Amino acid sequence: MSKLYGIGVGPGDKELLTVKAVRIIQSSPVVVAPSGMAGGKSIALEIAEEYINNTSEVIIKHFPMGGEDQEDKIYQAFEVIEQKLKEGKDVAFLTIGDPFIYSTYIYLLKYVEEKGYETETVPGITSFSACASIAGTPLVIGDEGLLIIPGSKVHTIKDEKYVVIMKVYKHEEEVLDVLEQKGFKYVYVKRAGREGQEVLMDREAITQNREYMSLIIANRI
Amino acid sequence: MSKLYGIGVGPGDKELLTVKAVRIIQSSPVVVAPSGMAGGKSIALEIAEEYINNTSEVIIKHFPMGGEDQEDKIYQAFEVIEQKLKEGKDVAFLTIGDPFIYSTYIYLLKYVEEKGYETETVPGITSFSACASIAGTPLVIGDEGLLIIPGSKVHTIKDEKYVVIMKVYKHEEEVLDVLEQKGFKYVYVKRAGREGQEVLMDREAITQNREYMSLIIANRI
Repeated sequence: MSKLYGIGVGPGDKELLTVKAVRIIQSSPVVVAPSGMAGGKSIALEIAEEYINNTSEVIIKHFPMGGEDQEDKIYQAFEVIEQKLKEGKDVAFLTIGDPFIYSTYIYLLKYVEEKGYETETVPGITSFSACASIAGTPLVIGDEGLLIIPGSKVHTIKDEKYVVIMKVYKHEEEVLDVLEQKGFKYVYVKRAGREGQEVLMDREAITQNREYMSLIIANRI
Repeated sequence: MSKLYGIGVGPGDKELLTVKAVRIIQSSPVVVAPSGMAGGKSIALEIAEEYINNTSEVIIKHFPMGGEDQEDKIYQAFEVIEQKLKEGKDVAFLTIGDPFIYSTYIYLLKYVEEKGYETETVPGITSFSACASIAGTPLVIGDEGLLIIPGSKVHTIKDEKYVVIMKVYKHEEEVLDVLEQKGFKYVYVKRAGREGQEVLMDREAITQNREYMSLIIANRI
């Protein structure tokens, strides 16, 4: 029976795919990759491209992050995938980072499972693990907790000592204000493992070099 | 100049090392692996073993998680590593999961950096990403936060909807009590990617099958 593989391709560095992800991508006759913008390129595909077999079919589908038409677009992608599964072909669906952390793959998986197809998910390197390694900054140590939040929720920080702020883009000032008020040290990492990678710790440098693919690792210890 | 590589080998599955981790392990003349117990085996070494070159030197050092002698033991491991670096040999230090999440590698790295040696850290698949993929359970979606805490800190959960409880071992009852009181659904995963892997959702099954390498993914949505 044909199977959907949800593959975490990691945050950007082509060497940060797992051995398992590479094996499954290489042997999948159909590879489906999401693009954030209609007709746009797929970052997940760029990361995994060199591992895809020449004879495999590659399909890019528009997967908006949020927005009114998100559900429709995911369902459209599901219909394309279902067609391939019906033809008896395994499908590898690529997702940036890890498939179960802030990924629209979760909704797609639900549709596929509801139709009774077999599925398997392969975890990926998270953006925050990659950024911590690049910056040389621990995410959490000892018996403390680690809170991972999107930039829009920075106000929910209470007494946590270790925090990761994802989706910082367009929330930079607000995020930095809260972190500074609460006595955090922070490091901003953009384009982890990709061209243009930068590690910034200066407020002005961060707000003047803002970038969609970025996050902040912060602690107060 | 010789270099220390801190390598995340992932949670247990030998296919969940990254392409980068495998490349560096294969080319390192010295591989150092921690063992939790004095004279005990090293789980990190078991995971990475097949990628180590036959001609490489493999050193197992006792790295206790906590306890009075932790600092001494880490310093002893550092001295062994420093000797190899002085001889001009690159050293790959293996750590389970990701090197910057609850890892004693953080302390070792500090000593090596203080002596001015070059270092590079390679992120690993976290245990919670691997467990989420095994259980088919999202870690966090939408614009919510994800709180990762050790079992001993389960009482610090406030209004979070998505939680991962690490280091559950010997705190099972307490953790399950708090999760149930607060209206969480939960899934317990033990020995992710290793022999004896199990996914349990029943309280009795969890407390009767407790195991050191385990964690709980919980949500209330």
